[in-house]
Amino acid sequence: MPGTLEGRSLLGLATAEPGARSFQAVDARSGEPLEPPFHAAGSADLERAVTMAERAFPAYAALDDAERSAFLRTAASTLEARGDAIVARADRETALGVARLTGELGRTANQLRLFATLVDEGRWRDVRIDRADPEREPAPRPDVRSLRRPLGPVAVFGASNFPLAFSVAGGDTASALAVGCPVVAKAHPAHPGTSELVGRALRSAARDTGMPDGTFSLLFDDGHELGQALVRHPAIRAVGFTGSRAGGQALVHLAAERPEPIPVFAEMSSVNPVFVLPGAARERGRAIADALLASFTLGVGQFCTNPGLVLVPAGGAGDALRDRLVEGARRSEAQVMLTAGIHRAFQGGLERLAELGARRLADGRGGTAATAASAAVWEVGVDELVARPGLAQEVFGPSTVLVRYRELEELVAFARAMEGQLTASLFGEADEWEGAQPLAAVLERKVGRLIVEGVPTGVEVCRAMVHGGPYPATSDGRSTSVGARAMERFTRLVAYQNVPATLLPPPLR
Amino acid sequence: MPGTLEGRSLLGLATAEPGARSFQAVDARSGEPLEPPFHAAGSADLERAVTMAERAFPAYAALDDAERSAFLRTAASTLEARGDAIVARADRETALGVARLTGELGRTANQLRLFATLVDEGRWRDVRIDRADPEREPAPRPDVRSLRRPLGPVAVFGASNFPLAFSVAGGDTASALAVGCPVVAKAHPAHPGTSELVGRALRSAARDTGMPDGTFSLLFDDGHELGQALVRHPAIRAVGFTGSRAGGQALVHLAAERPEPIPVFAEMSSVNPVFVLPGAARERGRAIADALLASFTLGVGQFCTNPGLVLVPAGGAGDALRDRLVEGARRSEAQVMLTAGIHRAFQGGLERLAELGARRLADGRGGTAATAASAAVWEVGVDELVARPGLAQEVFGPSTVLVRYRELEELVAFARAMEGQLTASLFGEADEWEGAQPLAAVLERKVGRLIVEGVPTGVEVCRAMVHGGPYPATSDGRSTSVGARAMERFTRLVAYQNVPATLLPPPLR
Repeated sequence: MPGTLEGRSLLGLATAEPGARSFQAVDARSGEPLEPPFHAAGSADLERAVTMAERAFPAYAALDDAERSAFLRTAASTLEARGDAIVARADRETALGVARLTGELGRTANQLRLFATLVDEGRWRDVRIDRADPEREPAPRPDVRSLRRPLGPVAVFGASNFPLAFSVAGGDTASALAVGCPVVAKAHPAHPGTSELVGRALRSAARDTGMPDGTFSLLFDDGHELGQALVRHPAIRAVGFTGSRAGGQALVHLAAERPEPIPVFAEMSSVNPVFVLPGAARERGRAIADALLASFTLGVGQFCTNPGLVLVPAGGAGDALRDRLVEGARRSEAQVMLTAGIHRAFQGGLERLAELGARRLADGRGGTAATAASAAVWEVGVDELVARPGLAQEVFGPSTVLVRYRELEELVAFARAMEGQLTASLFGEADEWEGAQPLAAVLERKVGRLIVEGVPTGVEVCRAMVHGGPYPATSDGRSTSVGARAMERFTRLVAYQNVPATLLPPPLR
Repeated sequence: MPGTLEGRSLLGLATAEPGARSFQAVDARSGEPLEPPFHAAGSADLERAVTMAERAFPAYAALDDAERSAFLRTAASTLEARGDAIVARADRETALGVARLTGELGRTANQLRLFATLVDEGRWRDVRIDRADPEREPAPRPDVRSLRRPLGPVAVFGASNFPLAFSVAGGDTASALAVGCPVVAKAHPAHPGTSELVGRALRSAARDTGMPDGTFSLLFDDGHELGQALVRHPAIRAVGFTGSRAGGQALVHLAAERPEPIPVFAEMSSVNPVFVLPGAARERGRAIADALLASFTLGVGQFCTNPGLVLVPAGGAGDALRDRLVEGARRSEAQVMLTAGIHRAFQGGLERLAELGARRLADGRGGTAATAASAAVWEVGVDELVARPGLAQEVFGPSTVLVRYRELEELVAFARAMEGQLTASLFGEADEWEGAQPLAAVLERKVGRLIVEGVPTGVEVCRAMVHGGPYPATSDGRSTSVGARAMERFTRLVAYQNVPATLLPPPLR
């Protein structure tokens, strides 16, 4: 019965024995514990999951592409078939609402299908062949062929704010499985029930399509030790993580201290600055304000792409934009945050902004739930921002800081000093782009995605997408966690010199 | 006068002022100091070189591809035009011999030309375009375009053992310049004269083709501090290094501890195991022995691709291979090593092998020079190798360890336990490949290049080449330092969403 939760880790096709310790999910709206208890995985469970993944790796990596893509497609349809139960549980655990979660489930399934298509196409392998030339002088030229190969078992950490699209069957799991890496997922403790349902959908798809046992496992734990042991395990070859800067940095350091260091792809923090040029503020200030309001309050602001910093011209047009945004924020309803911890951190972030001298312009309506957050709009001058860089630190939740500027040069100077970001957005009139070239030139060095006339929330799952960015937006700014090129992160290059067909990987024969 | 050495760092198109401290190169054969003294770069020189690189970056990266490829081609022809002086000085500083150095110069020039061709082709940018669909439901699909962009100024550390192909104008410099990254090179202190001549050829090419001042600088120092400060400098965005494991690891740690960590591509150490299967030993043991002798003594064994470990079957055929190799090694002439320090380390490595119980079978002839090294051949059983992994550690120089095995399973077990390597080689008869599949499957996970019927020395500069490998062969086993894909290491992905042509990089318009 897919809808009945067991509260136990999935070790390949098997289910873990009950453990010594358990924890419960919490109804995000009421704060009440949800049944059943989840047994925390012990070190023996971890060892078994990783050992099974390591054993499954050669067989899984050697499957025909059509078999791996069938697994991904079956996983997508199984998720959809069980969608109602998954969304219902996720809504209780996260309070994100049925509409958003239904959309996220569809996106998660479609992402699995995109990677299935990419597996079938095979371009990700980047096959290159230099043929031999036995006649070449002074020495014969060898036959050299190369391609990308999977790294091995990958550890994936579920994210609190995307219980589906960046969690158990999310982007990192999909791209790792697509290239031939088994996955050991660590469920986020804030939504273990959702994780179990999704994990069982993946397990069912793995069983139905005959994947090697150990291709996918799912571990539960509400502390840090199990995750740390997972990153330290010698058979784990790469890590995918989406979460806080402190959490990501801790995993990066652990991985670097291993006898054999491994790559960690941690997506950590971003304020996603939005630059409103004077012409745009003048011509479309109200529409931009409305778009920003919708963006920074979407999902209670719990997005890594939340626009946390909006640079608005000083003067009347900027004032009108600000007033519209403030007015909208005051009317907005308080919404329940994902967890009590995230709510506490949000309140701490607001206090930090106030201490740093930001002026609070708007409070959204209060909520009845203990963990409800109201929209907050702040204002500072660009000189204050430059003097106190803490004003540009991410506050995870529905808060945004308006930064008033006078000259385009101030925008360029701020962009030069700012940390790496997932995105930056520009709003401008057609005649402003030429003047904005110096700003865009600086932003290109600081972000993974430059957006014009758009808010940063809403990451299109497409082939060209880059969802990444320089440190500290991510731990490895050369990569992306969304889009076709996400498959590259779990691969390495291998060359074959004069190797006979019997020993060549099939794509090189 | 290109042939007259000045002994001063090159800061863009300018020359550094004399510094407080200087050092001299040493004639590798005689141990005598060579004129002139080289002024160690001070912190002001470093600051100027990096600041110039940072300022040059936007203009250099924005050049037309044809301008950058013309620079690389001019650099190649300038190197060749000055080849006699470069080779003569390099021979005195390294004792590698005119023939080898002439070949290395040609390879270095051709590598610059290969990257020039790749720049013209433009494939390295990996342009992807997803066009907008304004009619899509529930939300319009944005226009998303992405490509690889250069990271920014790159620090390149010259290698002791490749004064040309992996030094000032070597692979890392060529691939960084090709994608649009300015380079600040740190000359290896063992061949500063060669470095100056090569650096001035690059500077001359930069001037002749109108590159922005600061696109290339060259710093001299005989200690570690300048290099460390270079890696720590905030404007440096990536590091290329070829050298010892300790040196590479030190730079990796420095880079990871920066407020904003940067990638370090360190090629460090490898023993490049060679697996001789029983049929090959039986049919072609003597020819294989001759190829191995030539390979492990080539360039006094001072190659990262030196075959330091040869797995040979027990019994008569293996004995014959061994005896042939021993006989050849005994007849081989002692050769002068690159530096006294490398010679000391080599002697230390030999002592370590002896302490670990390896039996020394052959000494090449002694030499008169204090830093001459004789070929050394050792023998151990595969059980000893497994029990004492130190036997599989790199000894940099003309030394190789024969490992006698009885069963193919022993080879698989050793391969499973071995560290990451640049290469592994297999010698076998046609009917042995099927049985070797389990061994090849393990080796594919451990190496950057799998070779059949060939020794590991001699890295073909071609599009498909992978010169890399899992840790500790390199610090980032996903990359290559030779071949077309070496350009990727100094790039990152950037996406542009709904960005008007005025603000798009030309390849995306």
